[in-house]
Amino acid sequence: AHIVTLPGDGVGPEVTAAAVAVLQAVAARYSHEFSFEEQAIGGCAIDAFGEPLPAAALAACQQADAVLLGAVGGPKWSDPNAPVRPEQGLLALRAALGVYANLRPLQVHPALAALSPLKNEKLKNVDVLFVRELTGGAYFGAKTRTADTATDECKYTVAEVERVVRRAFDLARDRRRHVTSVDKANVLETSRLWRSTVQRIAADYPDVKLEHQLVDSMAMLLLTQPSRYDVVVTENLFGDILTDEAAALAGSLGLLPSASLGEGSNGLYEPIHGSAPDIAGQNVANPTGAILSAAMLLRHSLQLEAEAVAIEAAVDHVLTHGPHTRDIGGQASTTQIRDAVLAAFE
Amino acid sequence: AHIVTLPGDGVGPEVTAAAVAVLQAVAARYSHEFSFEEQAIGGCAIDAFGEPLPAAALAACQQADAVLLGAVGGPKWSDPNAPVRPEQGLLALRAALGVYANLRPLQVHPALAALSPLKNEKLKNVDVLFVRELTGGAYFGAKTRTADTATDECKYTVAEVERVVRRAFDLARDRRRHVTSVDKANVLETSRLWRSTVQRIAADYPDVKLEHQLVDSMAMLLLTQPSRYDVVVTENLFGDILTDEAAALAGSLGLLPSASLGEGSNGLYEPIHGSAPDIAGQNVANPTGAILSAAMLLRHSLQLEAEAVAIEAAVDHVLTHGPHTRDIGGQASTTQIRDAVLAAFE
Ligand SMILES: CC(C)[C@H](C(=O)O)[C@@H](O)C(=O)O
Ligand SMILES: CC(C)[C@H](C(=O)O)[C@@H](O)C(=O)O
Repeated sequence: AHIVTLPGDGVGPEVTAAAVAVLQAVAARYSHEFSFEEQAIGGCAIDAFGEPLPAAALAACQQADAVLLGAVGGPKWSDPNAPVRPEQGLLALRAALGVYANLRPLQVHPALAALSPLKNEKLKNVDVLFVRELTGGAYFGAKTRTADTATDECKYTVAEVERVVRRAFDLARDRRRHVTSVDKANVLETSRLWRSTVQRIAADYPDVKLEHQLVDSMAMLLLTQPSRYDVVVTENLFGDILTDEAAALAGSLGLLPSASLGEGSNGLYEPIHGSAPDIAGQNVANPTGAILSAAMLLRHSLQLEAEAVAIEAAVDHVLTHGPHTRDIGGQASTTQIRDAVLAAFE
Repeated sequence: AHIVTLPGDGVGPEVTAAAVAVLQAVAARYSHEFSFEEQAIGGCAIDAFGEPLPAAALAACQQADAVLLGAVGGPKWSDPNAPVRPEQGLLALRAALGVYANLRPLQVHPALAALSPLKNEKLKNVDVLFVRELTGGAYFGAKTRTADTATDECKYTVAEVERVVRRAFDLARDRRRHVTSVDKANVLETSRLWRSTVQRIAADYPDVKLEHQLVDSMAMLLLTQPSRYDVVVTENLFGDILTDEAAALAGSLGLLPSASLGEGSNGLYEPIHGSAPDIAGQNVANPTGAILSAAMLLRHSLQLEAEAVAIEAAVDHVLTHGPHTRDIGGQASTTQIRDAVLAAFE
């Protein structure tokens, strides 16, 4: 299998390197051939090529079996009036790959419950799979700007809603068969289209329980009753906000992976943390989210479920027994965590 | 002073009645003349008059010195395809009154920390004033809908951003002089206009510290570092989501008030909880948010600061010593809380 890596900015290169090392160990142990090709995206691509997603990088990603990304962005490129921004590269890539379903699983590791801002009794049995629509909504709608006025259009078609919602219902069948659809149907027209589409699709899944929540209520319910939720499906911007909120429950953003999937088997895998410029280049970033993203890559793009489970078990071992990086109360470096996961994997 | 009450739907009438009783006690003790006029809004107005904001109600609100609202909405009127919805009445009222700045203070009462989903050490010194833009953004932008497609336009002008941001900076001067502006400037054009407007205005407030956060990060930071924040200013939809998230920290939505202010002294005051149809009509809803909204009404529309403080002290006494409603672990009724606050106020 051919895997394109996009280390990107900030801590992206460090955590991506750790994840690649783990994939190489998988290849060795299970006798797979993985070839890796590194390409530029984000701020580093702007600096080197003047654009956040060079054509060569995009072409490589389109031909790959899967894409593993680190992070994009940083203060160097975040002037609101800059003509070109790192995030544009990521958004263009998501659109070009057609990865409309962004899967963000949330579990709270028992060894880390003390780090969560939530009380421990709230964290019992928390196991949520967020399915965030990733290629529509205000992220991709028409934008206008004059000196005096700015607009962003949020737009959804029935087909865009339907495909991601069906994915959520399908995923729920392998879990606890409960889908929560989040919208703002009491105010937004796109949310009313969303809700009526969900209602129609739910009829095809009589074995799955459906619940609707307004996004403001959901922001509260994720804190008061997090263990109630199984699969949570929502549009792009709401998903961005709710998944970061939920990530706080895990104790550190550095722990959580994501998979972005479309119709084919190619997918885009990235930890949900950002580029963390304050700690970049110091070999202290937590590579766990990147390593778990590599496990998702094995599962969803390469259909290597046993290999994915083996990585997850190794990560679980390290989270349980240490060592830990600084963000979760330890002193280990990025490369020490990589080595500990590799050792647990052998 | 002439106060229009809009009890609305669900528990709205019950909590509004409690707040009116407290305002009447203020009038008696401080020798003020308050006249009250009740009008219909929301679902009950749809049922009675076919529209969620009858002209008579709107006219009364426009002529009032202040407006006290309960809540609008409920399952009876929440079909996404209904031609008219309760929330339209509230949105039309906010627009007509020009109340562009929605103040939502968050404090966590020490006696209720055990009810918060957050660990107690996180809750120390939490004292945030959210200033939510209330009459712009996707709530009020152009909407379209066909069988296949829906759109919502989010639109902001510099003037709309400037007035609410100046209000936030002014409020910060009476507090800890720290403003956090929340946007999604790495993706949205309206957020870039928002951020550059905030940057320009900040120059007029060199004594106030300004910080920018992306809305996804802020959803996390409100949980991991809630005591860091003083005044948080943001656009309409982000404010809707973040204030409900933050409200969970207080232990119950039923505790929290809000004030919506424009250029004049007339304002719209409402608890941040919704209509809670599941407990409506049972005399069990927590009237604290409504009573504290009445205190904000005294402070912001009637300039009666001492009276506002006296109500807040009475509420504080009841929260500390009980009785408590069910949502915060007690068994008292709405009217018992009203009476307890009145007794503490005497
Ligand atoms: C970097 C940014 C554009 C991105 C988003 O908002 O989608 C990030 O926050 C994420 O959640 O993956
Ligand atoms: C009822 C609804 C329209 C309203 C809003 O979204 O503004 C409510 O959630 C609020 O926060 O006051």
